[in-house]
Amino acid sequence: MSVILLTPDELTNSSETRLSLEDLFRKEFVVHNPEARWINDSDVVYKNGNGHVIKLNVETNVTTLLLENTTFVTFKASRHSVSPDLRFVLLAYDVKQIYIFENNIYYQPDVKSSSLRLTSSGKEGIIFNGIADWLYEEELLHSHIAHWWSPDGERLAFLMINDSLVPNMVIPRFTGGLYPKAKQYPYPKAGQVNPTVKLYVVNLYGPTHTLELMPPDSFKSREYYITMVKWVSNTKTVVRWLNRPQNISILTVCETTTGACSKKYEMTSDVWLSKQNEEPVFTKDGSKFFMTVPVKQGGRGEFHHIAMFIVQPKSEQISVRHLTSGNWEVIKILAYDESTQKIYFLSTETSPRGRQLHSASTDGLLNRQCLSCSFMKDQCTYFSAKFSPTNQHFLLHCKGPGVPVVSVHNTNNTSKFYILESNSLLKEAIMKKKITKTEIKMLHIEDYELRLQLSFPKDFSDRNQYAVLLLIDEAPGSQLVTDKFHIDWDSVLVDSDNVIVARFDGRGSGFQGLKILQEVHRSLGSVEVKDQITAVKSLLKQPYIDSKRLSIFGKGYGGYIASMILKSDERFFKCGSVVAPITDMKLYASAFAERYLGLPSKEENTYQASSVLHNIHSLKEENLLIIHGTADTKVHFQHSAELIKHLIKAGVNYTMQVYPDEGHNIASEKSKYHLYSTILRFFSDCLKEEVPVLPQEPEEDE
Amino acid sequence: MSVILLTPDELTNSSETRLSLEDLFRKEFVVHNPEARWINDSDVVYKNGNGHVIKLNVETNVTTLLLENTTFVTFKASRHSVSPDLRFVLLAYDVKQIYIFENNIYYQPDVKSSSLRLTSSGKEGIIFNGIADWLYEEELLHSHIAHWWSPDGERLAFLMINDSLVPNMVIPRFTGGLYPKAKQYPYPKAGQVNPTVKLYVVNLYGPTHTLELMPPDSFKSREYYITMVKWVSNTKTVVRWLNRPQNISILTVCETTTGACSKKYEMTSDVWLSKQNEEPVFTKDGSKFFMTVPVKQGGRGEFHHIAMFIVQPKSEQISVRHLTSGNWEVIKILAYDESTQKIYFLSTETSPRGRQLHSASTDGLLNRQCLSCSFMKDQCTYFSAKFSPTNQHFLLHCKGPGVPVVSVHNTNNTSKFYILESNSLLKEAIMKKKITKTEIKMLHIEDYELRLQLSFPKDFSDRNQYAVLLLIDEAPGSQLVTDKFHIDWDSVLVDSDNVIVARFDGRGSGFQGLKILQEVHRSLGSVEVKDQITAVKSLLKQPYIDSKRLSIFGKGYGGYIASMILKSDERFFKCGSVVAPITDMKLYASAFAERYLGLPSKEENTYQASSVLHNIHSLKEENLLIIHGTADTKVHFQHSAELIKHLIKAGVNYTMQVYPDEGHNIASEKSKYHLYSTILRFFSDCLKEEVPVLPQEPEEDE
Repeated sequence: MSVILLTPDELTNSSETRLSLEDLFRKEFVVHNPEARWINDSDVVYKNGNGHVIKLNVETNVTTLLLENTTFVTFKASRHSVSPDLRFVLLAYDVKQIYIFENNIYYQPDVKSSSLRLTSSGKEGIIFNGIADWLYEEELLHSHIAHWWSPDGERLAFLMINDSLVPNMVIPRFTGGLYPKAKQYPYPKAGQVNPTVKLYVVNLYGPTHTLELMPPDSFKSREYYITMVKWVSNTKTVVRWLNRPQNISILTVCETTTGACSKKYEMTSDVWLSKQNEEPVFTKDGSKFFMTVPVKQGGRGEFHHIAMFIVQPKSEQISVRHLTSGNWEVIKILAYDESTQKIYFLSTETSPRGRQLHSASTDGLLNRQCLSCSFMKDQCTYFSAKFSPTNQHFLLHCKGPGVPVVSVHNTNNTSKFYILESNSLLKEAIMKKKITKTEIKMLHIEDYELRLQLSFPKDFSDRNQYAVLLLIDEAPGSQLVTDKFHIDWDSVLVDSDNVIVARFDGRGSGFQGLKILQEVHRSLGSVEVKDQITAVKSLLKQPYIDSKRLSIFGKGYGGYIASMILKSDERFFKCGSVVAPITDMKLYASAFAERYLGLPSKEENTYQASSVLHNIHSLKEENLLIIHGTADTKVHFQHSAELIKHLIKAGVNYTMQVYPDEGHNIASEKSKYHLYSTILRFFSDCLKEEVPVLPQEPEEDE
Repeated sequence: MSVILLTPDELTNSSETRLSLEDLFRKEFVVHNPEARWINDSDVVYKNGNGHVIKLNVETNVTTLLLENTTFVTFKASRHSVSPDLRFVLLAYDVKQIYIFENNIYYQPDVKSSSLRLTSSGKEGIIFNGIADWLYEEELLHSHIAHWWSPDGERLAFLMINDSLVPNMVIPRFTGGLYPKAKQYPYPKAGQVNPTVKLYVVNLYGPTHTLELMPPDSFKSREYYITMVKWVSNTKTVVRWLNRPQNISILTVCETTTGACSKKYEMTSDVWLSKQNEEPVFTKDGSKFFMTVPVKQGGRGEFHHIAMFIVQPKSEQISVRHLTSGNWEVIKILAYDESTQKIYFLSTETSPRGRQLHSASTDGLLNRQCLSCSFMKDQCTYFSAKFSPTNQHFLLHCKGPGVPVVSVHNTNNTSKFYILESNSLLKEAIMKKKITKTEIKMLHIEDYELRLQLSFPKDFSDRNQYAVLLLIDEAPGSQLVTDKFHIDWDSVLVDSDNVIVARFDGRGSGFQGLKILQEVHRSLGSVEVKDQITAVKSLLKQPYIDSKRLSIFGKGYGGYIASMILKSDERFFKCGSVVAPITDMKLYASAFAERYLGLPSKEENTYQASSVLHNIHSLKEENLLIIHGTADTKVHFQHSAELIKHLIKAGVNYTMQVYPDEGHNIASEKSKYHLYSTILRFFSDCLKEEVPVLPQEPEEDE
């Protein structure tokens, strides 16, 4: 049997019209995000395509140049945060990849005056004031900022994160000097000592004094995290406290003049609590607030929906009213309009793959209305939005499936809009190059309808056979199959190598109800693997799939799942690549690992069972590419080192690429280009159709 | 002109008869070295093939089992040294890969008594008493032992090496724990602060007292090394002192009862001094000693020859008599026989590739006689030897070209011998498998006759075309083209992949006179590259070489030269692999780098010119494999990290293999197997003959 290679039969099919790796690094292929934000009810500040900072008056559509692009480089580098009255700037000193801070807060009333040190307890790498340690930044707050200004700028709330008992991880350094020095920083691995956290408020007018806001009584003798702090008036903050196992959460409102906090809402869960960063939206008088809570939708389990919490004037008792319901999720509450009593939010009501902006009445029939559904219908189904302070206008950020567009809308007349960024260069470039078809297939697994997305090469024909690359998501609770615009190295593979790229959101993925999300509890690395394999099996039923040319890719947690799949009994894949893979949850961050697997214990083998290193010999993949930066502070190089050591011991082959002194996101342009070309070359070589070698016969004269 | 060495022609040509990687790891393919040594004039102690320690009486040929192989494991692990009267054992505490010592000397008079601490200045990683720091072990003494017993065991000479001002290198650790700790140790890079050294003698009888042996006056205010210490009587030691630039060397004899040292011989050089570890051989009364010195041989430059130094009884003046001469080198002086006044030594007189044992009279016509030339002529031309205390017998270690053989001979009747180890299993295994032909070609470069060795596959025919692997030597001053028995991964490549392996000793190589050796002075990484390229060019003239399938390999300094060759303008090589390559001499050990390049200075660009990293973009090799252990204490992983960083920056492709927490010699069996299979796969893939793909025509009906 021999396979005849098809010679492309089109003239227009030249390499120039195909997306190349070089294209990705061209200016016109970069999606521009203007990072627009409201500075008052009629003015938006944003960065245009040339890097200039522009002020747009949304009433008059007049633009003003605020800063030249040259200034902005410095401006951005300082990672400042501006207080609401625009008078104060809080500087985070020495922001580096591994945070090495002076860790104290300095207050500079105006540009000319000298700065005042507000805290003195800060110790580099030990006590963090107003700034997050590694765990808080990466796994809890999802921001390096751990301080919050009151609306009038008179008070500052901040966390004091104490890492003095947290074990330190050493990050080696290899380049840039004769004797490069290693660095270390506190990193609590699963079951290790966690940082302790305290919340303070400092009063900046008059003699400064600092007050601690106390945790709820039931948390006083327990380990806990603070996952959200928000000012709801000039003197009150709302704070969310979460116990270490992450299954009890208490929302308190604190009076910062006295330090007294009162419990508003307590949540518990048999598994873990999600959405712990969500900021409740309060009415001006504080008598009501809005927040999403899990609401049961019959047999399909719980979905996040908006609840209105009404504080009874005297008793301080709270009654709850549910404002939305259905087999879909409220993603984010954006604003509450006091005059119309409408609430604005993003939801998946129209499709789990999309995000549309809705309003809902908070009384009567709770009528819902879609504000974004008719905007650029053909290219926009995935939105985010930002409302102006009085909700007269909103910024609408269309993120896909077409090229991203940012526009400003009048809330009362959404058809009146101003396009702030249309990414027209990108659109033009894409039109010339990339005509990938995408198809969604629904898979039925244990009563769930799960989505498999396939990206086809532009000259796809189901009479041919194609190689497949299966991409694995980077985090549990995330989503791969969405309508977001996407162009990356995998697009090159589809376009230039005729590979079908598959994405599948199985159990453990997010935004499709809590039941799917929580299926991974205590079985991380098991159900995801099963579902991905089911997806591959369904693919193999398609006649246009070449079962001998399947491959897999994942990064971080995705690298973990990809490794676990390669280790499984099924032998579908010809090759796989993992970038910065987690290989053992015991070596990963406490707040992440414990959320899914609980504390490591000698009695249970949850951690061992979930480890890639355990029974490594079953990973017989001949063609495994491991990629890791040696200065990765998130997934330590240790993970790949242990993997390699175990592979060598088991006699399993692999290839690898190391990026010296690069972090989790191999960030420098040159390294990124090298990374991409390495991955593309790897998959291209592995997935190329085998040319049948004709047996060579001695030359004969006839 | 070419010399055919071995051509056993056999019938069987099946894959079973070809050497495989697996074979290398089979017990029968391991060369057994019995590590035999004299314990008195008639008894030899050695380890047999089963690991038992055996005593052989060479008069009666009776053997006695001294230690079972089980005991020996422990015995060997303790790395002891026994004092000549067999009563004292000096223990080096905690010998690990990076020496972490208590660094003090303890004296235990007998097994029952408690040990006595002789020094107290030892500080882990700072002050080393009696044991070498990294620099002394690796580059100066070539041993970790830095203490020497007097013949009667009453005195102990030891070095105190002070590293307190030497910068520390950090060696990261990645595996084996949740929070693996980095380690550090003093490592002076080129131009950095060196350790200081002092020589002490401690008297162990009566009240112990310690005396410093002082350096020569001219060295007192200079930086110097001590490169050799040897007892020549119960109270006298001979010591060699070398200045930091390594071009002035002073030999002194020290009276250890007083501490007074007198200069016996001073050497200077325009380049650097070699053979600084050589131990002079003294007559019993100390009136004469023998040592090799460079002797000019006409236009061919200097060669190392034996000189007899005669100390005038009263004046202490020294007269010199040269005992040997010619265009060959004396490798080692082994013994002086007082009764016959004969000197025994190894030399390259018969061939620079071999080592034969000779005797020479020290008076009259200085008649020379070869003692090993007739022993197993067909398989033995490369020997080492050890003489018994009174020179009645000697151990002869034949190291090649056949399988190694160790025998004991009577000095006065060398034809009377006893074979202690014949490696018969290995011989049998080889006979079945490996029938590689070897050929030597002489190349004429700038008045030198230089040797190129080719290893041919067994079914070689000059009507076919073959791929080539060029192996580069691991150290300057070393020799690749020798008659030593050799079986390693490259043998597999010759035998199983039909690759011709080439070795070439160009300028900078050793044992062919000092002129060839010293050509690299101040041009390290330049002349070697030129000569290797000349060798390749000469190869390309052969009709049986496929010029499109050339490859190169080197480790350490060899990796450095290989990289420099790949960087050169000539584009001969399809692929190359470097293991633990030195990529910048500034990052390498002071004593090595300064020997060849001098101290780094701002005025001269010697170091920059010799750096692989400089002008890296000229390294356009598409197919480069970089291999490095991350815990390499000799060539730090830093070298490869800088190389990779520069390659990424220049957009040059490469592949790599990292061995986490492995040192310079990737030592563990599993890692070694992985390393070998990685290298073999790389070269096998790269060098395989390209099968011509026939153009596919559309199927047609005729």
